[in-house]
Amino acid sequence: MNCEILAVGSEMLTPFRQDTNSLYLTERMNALGVVLLAKGIIGDNRNLAAAAIRHALSRADIVLLTGGLGPTMDDVTREAAAQALGVDLVRDPDILAALYKRYAERRIAMPENNVRQADVIRGAVSLHNPTGSAPGQWIDTVFEGHRKILILLPGVPHEMKAIFTAECEPRLRELLPPGNIASRMLRIAGLQEAEVDARSAPIYTSFGDVETTILAANSEIQLHFRCNAATPDKAQKRVDELCGRVEDELGESVFSSHGESLEQVVLFFLEMRGETLSTAESCTGGLVAMRVTSVSGSSRSFLGGAIVYANEMKTEFADVPVKLLIEHGAVSRPVAAALAEGIRERTGSTLGLGVTGVAGPGGGTPEAPVGLVYVALSDGRETVVKERRFTGDRDRIRWQASMLGLDLVRRRLM
Amino acid sequence: MNCEILAVGSEMLTPFRQDTNSLYLTERMNALGVVLLAKGIIGDNRNLAAAAIRHALSRADIVLLTGGLGPTMDDVTREAAAQALGVDLVRDPDILAALYKRYAERRIAMPENNVRQADVIRGAVSLHNPTGSAPGQWIDTVFEGHRKILILLPGVPHEMKAIFTAECEPRLRELLPPGNIASRMLRIAGLQEAEVDARSAPIYTSFGDVETTILAANSEIQLHFRCNAATPDKAQKRVDELCGRVEDELGESVFSSHGESLEQVVLFFLEMRGETLSTAESCTGGLVAMRVTSVSGSSRSFLGGAIVYANEMKTEFADVPVKLLIEHGAVSRPVAAALAEGIRERTGSTLGLGVTGVAGPGGGTPEAPVGLVYVALSDGRETVVKERRFTGDRDRIRWQASMLGLDLVRRRLM
Repeated sequence: MNCEILAVGSEMLTPFRQDTNSLYLTERMNALGVVLLAKGIIGDNRNLAAAAIRHALSRADIVLLTGGLGPTMDDVTREAAAQALGVDLVRDPDILAALYKRYAERRIAMPENNVRQADVIRGAVSLHNPTGSAPGQWIDTVFEGHRKILILLPGVPHEMKAIFTAECEPRLRELLPPGNIASRMLRIAGLQEAEVDARSAPIYTSFGDVETTILAANSEIQLHFRCNAATPDKAQKRVDELCGRVEDELGESVFSSHGESLEQVVLFFLEMRGETLSTAESCTGGLVAMRVTSVSGSSRSFLGGAIVYANEMKTEFADVPVKLLIEHGAVSRPVAAALAEGIRERTGSTLGLGVTGVAGPGGGTPEAPVGLVYVALSDGRETVVKERRFTGDRDRIRWQASMLGLDLVRRRLM
Repeated sequence: MNCEILAVGSEMLTPFRQDTNSLYLTERMNALGVVLLAKGIIGDNRNLAAAAIRHALSRADIVLLTGGLGPTMDDVTREAAAQALGVDLVRDPDILAALYKRYAERRIAMPENNVRQADVIRGAVSLHNPTGSAPGQWIDTVFEGHRKILILLPGVPHEMKAIFTAECEPRLRELLPPGNIASRMLRIAGLQEAEVDARSAPIYTSFGDVETTILAANSEIQLHFRCNAATPDKAQKRVDELCGRVEDELGESVFSSHGESLEQVVLFFLEMRGETLSTAESCTGGLVAMRVTSVSGSSRSFLGGAIVYANEMKTEFADVPVKLLIEHGAVSRPVAAALAEGIRERTGSTLGLGVTGVAGPGGGTPEAPVGLVYVALSDGRETVVKERRFTGDRDRIRWQASMLGLDLVRRRLM
């Protein structure tokens, strides 16, 4: 079985807005064993939307529509879907009563337009919306001689998700062959895509029943595995077996085998080992600390840190000797080490991380060109320093530096 | 004139990848006066892609295809477009020679597959790719009795942009009525969408020739204005006039009138006024400093700061008296003020910003519930403190706190 997702809404045809609902729906449909054939975005235009729905129904078994179910005249999805199927809309008295009740409870008069939200495509099942006023709709029909499922969902993400989970997934499960799909992802830091592929391909190609996808994004490599087998247990077993063998090959470069982020893994290990962390950042300007503290509960293991942009701050907050700064320059191996050691001592954490580099685009010199980054980790006994020359724009260099720093902490804790 | 954008590539039908090329192309096409009718994503399947191209050609004047121009068998866009138009492909000897030369210069043998990149749709103009090996293609043709333009561009963003700018925009400008379009955006902080709309609607509705769109995103409100007039100057004049009147109405809540980010505006004013900034952040964990230092040249006005997650760090790095922390709690008006004053003194900056709050989801108390945030700004003479109760998840609360803090600095400097 395959599906197509169509988002309806003119705002998603501007340069300022993306359709993100389709990412969630793709993930859920894939988990049900349904392949996505295509996706599209159409504006608030009834005729164009109707034509797009017909085109989708002509090629896909299941068509998911999101958006355009609100009360205003811009909301055309109900009419467009009815037009595409050649049927009319019926005003549902129960939905209408629920709409009036909703407004009465808030002691405000319901705008006249709102009655449109009670319009149901003839033959459709209305899908209860637990958190909003626009119900979804489920149509099991025959189109051009083939059985098709057309699903209408609101565009508001939390309403869309609530209806999809409670109303659509159970119906789809009944319809589809039992879900025997398992999937997993490995996330890898510190290796290039080509190396990950060269080392893992001999393994994953020997698993003909597991689909493998390799993606490089944001300074990490992801290996996605997916298996469709006779039973869910068998699918899971095959995926786990392949994951295990690739993990053995790639070793500690694999930072996550169940989807966790690098910062989550770092915090998990800090807590498990009873260690605490502090940071002294120059070129990353707080990015490392921001990533660590984005995880709820990080205060148990992360004490704090300093952003030491000006040289005086490196001395003030991390006790970097002025002599070191003069002799070696702020972007140097000894200064990175001094930042790590200094912030560790000042905060009393067990581990101190120092980052210094040239994020660019300006500020590069022959000795310290744009992209040169040092990260250092001190545990009080020894200090490890890593040097890299990154490419890309300012944001990318800073991001890569933060990955290198967090990964250094992770490897130390493993 | 209108257009449709189709991205070709199976990876964009996974839950892990978005098509972002279309945002750039939408912005450029809009600037040329071309409206986007629809956009779509299709996998690496020749027949499905050909059908999608035909569907797009049947409704849009200009169809832009991105992706699928590489050398592998997965790259089906050339074949699919030829199939959609009912013509064949011709191997272009000049492109072929350039491909061989490209490899010869690197002293590596060209993989056999690569010759496919020299295949040009019969009747198409090949578009030189200055940074990659896959050329684009421009087809000016008649489809179902109407003149249509079909454009093929690579999926690699910088190659797509380079070809579009150098080869497509000049051709489109010749084709289209002279571009008399002007657009501008105002960015607003510290007001709700409903208030911005209520106050600006009486003004923008009196400009019938300017299209106004209001968008709320990431704790800011954007007003987009766009005008199509008899001449470019007239369009610009009308947009500028409307912008000016809305700015007068909204006053200093408008932080940007030419697209600058809040952090860029803050740094601009810091430099202009000869002031310097430092930060002491608790709940935002470095987000404010990270945003400020994301701007190139920020080191001229931003000295550094501290991330004071643990209470001891608030004392260690910003000299917050222990007594204050015990009496009022870490999330309180006096502690926010002490953070701002302390970090200012410690760094020697002219302005000090302090942020403290509860980002959640855990850690809330009756006195300091999740979402409560204090930001404080000290200039050595007086300290201003703002209190807010934000809603949303951890990321959203932290982001809103960073907006409030940066906006407090901006308003102080205006």
